[in-house]
Amino acid sequence: MNDTIKMLLNHRSIRSYKDESLTDEQIHHIVQSAQSAATSSYVQAYTIIGVKDASKKEKLAELAGNQAYVAKNGHFFVFCLDLHRLELAAELEGAAAEQIEQALNSTEMFMIGVIDTALAAQNAVIAAESMGLGICYIGGLRNQLDEVSKLLQTPNRVVPLFGLSVGYPANLSDTKPRLPLANVYHEDGYNQDQSELVDQLQAYDQVISSYYSERTGGARKDRWSEAMAKLLQNPKRLYMKRFLNDKNIPLE
Amino acid sequence: MNDTIKMLLNHRSIRSYKDESLTDEQIHHIVQSAQSAATSSYVQAYTIIGVKDASKKEKLAELAGNQAYVAKNGHFFVFCLDLHRLELAAELEGAAAEQIEQALNSTEMFMIGVIDTALAAQNAVIAAESMGLGICYIGGLRNQLDEVSKLLQTPNRVVPLFGLSVGYPANLSDTKPRLPLANVYHEDGYNQDQSELVDQLQAYDQVISSYYSERTGGARKDRWSEAMAKLLQNPKRLYMKRFLNDKNIPLE
Repeated sequence: MNDTIKMLLNHRSIRSYKDESLTDEQIHHIVQSAQSAATSSYVQAYTIIGVKDASKKEKLAELAGNQAYVAKNGHFFVFCLDLHRLELAAELEGAAAEQIEQALNSTEMFMIGVIDTALAAQNAVIAAESMGLGICYIGGLRNQLDEVSKLLQTPNRVVPLFGLSVGYPANLSDTKPRLPLANVYHEDGYNQDQSELVDQLQAYDQVISSYYSERTGGARKDRWSEAMAKLLQNPKRLYMKRFLNDKNIPLE
Repeated sequence: MNDTIKMLLNHRSIRSYKDESLTDEQIHHIVQSAQSAATSSYVQAYTIIGVKDASKKEKLAELAGNQAYVAKNGHFFVFCLDLHRLELAAELEGAAAEQIEQALNSTEMFMIGVIDTALAAQNAVIAAESMGLGICYIGGLRNQLDEVSKLLQTPNRVVPLFGLSVGYPANLSDTKPRLPLANVYHEDGYNQDQSELVDQLQAYDQVISSYYSERTGGARKDRWSEAMAKLLQNPKRLYMKRFLNDKNIPLE
């Protein structure tokens, strides 16, 4: 196993950072790495917003559900799906708005944008971690996207998908055990054997329950399935379809 | 600049591979690396299908638009968004279907699944490239998802998002220049200065036109904006919303 793979397997989210900002050189290396990820048909359908302004960071931390590490870190990035640039490029070529509307409005184009943005973000993460920095993705940024997009002045057809806190780790958390490989990796087709899948999930539930129990002196013993059931029973961000529609992304 | 970042910046898609299969150990390292990526609320909302069966690979190559490197490679992965496992986990906990339906049907949950899957895939790519392997994402897998999902027997709430060819490179292509950093990376808010953005795109168009011209002895001189306009004028995969709906992903 080479050092890069060891680094990947050693990933954990870092939620507490030293009081040291990233240099502009570090930020550029991270952004360039993000841009080097594969992109569907060369569309590069994302914009990355780096937030340095302290009051904006505080506001984003609040909007993301009072997560302190959104404000206190070495740098904060917001990864945005961006179809606005494509629209602009097509207009530069004299394409009429109604001609390109169907493509821009499609569910497929939205998927391309989300995938492109996420691939770029994960490259940014690897670049950051290779420099000894820690990271935490901030999905909580989607809690209140109307406010976030106002604060960051994102135009139509641009969607802030998630934040990324980066910085020098103040505390190392533990890596969290993942699903059994056999449950996630199937060969030649999706494994439709429900009883096998259930057995795997139940074995994993024991692993996770022990993991939490060891770390909390027995106070917490959640199984994975239990956590997932709770998550699904409290649906989140049900305004998303309305928000996307307002931003001219009607998922047609 | 460290070696990992150099590797990231050196990425190019590889479409021609030596006739040498990946070992099971390599495949496992790639999948484990994928699983180590961050995951929203621990959902791990993906399944990776490795395709070894030669006739299935041929069929997938055909479905993806006759791309030979879908069949001829060291290994072929299909990355699937998977909300079926979450549904199963919640059922194991005794959650009633109608209780969890709203979460599973939401646009937000779909976005979580797409992002989770893409982050995992990009980690798989980094692991592969760190072993000296080349890769190519296959978005063409989405050309005919009804057929693909039949072939791979994916259940409801599972969506094959893209393929990934991996193998030892037979030919090294060139890295392709990305958008100017200032066009993609904005500070403290989205840059709304259209004339500045247009200037950047036009400068980039020159770079891309020269790039193609140099490589084709002047036969091809496409600008990036031109390519994007053509792409948008030929909308693709407009069946996607219908397909997702059929798979019980109604994007509510």
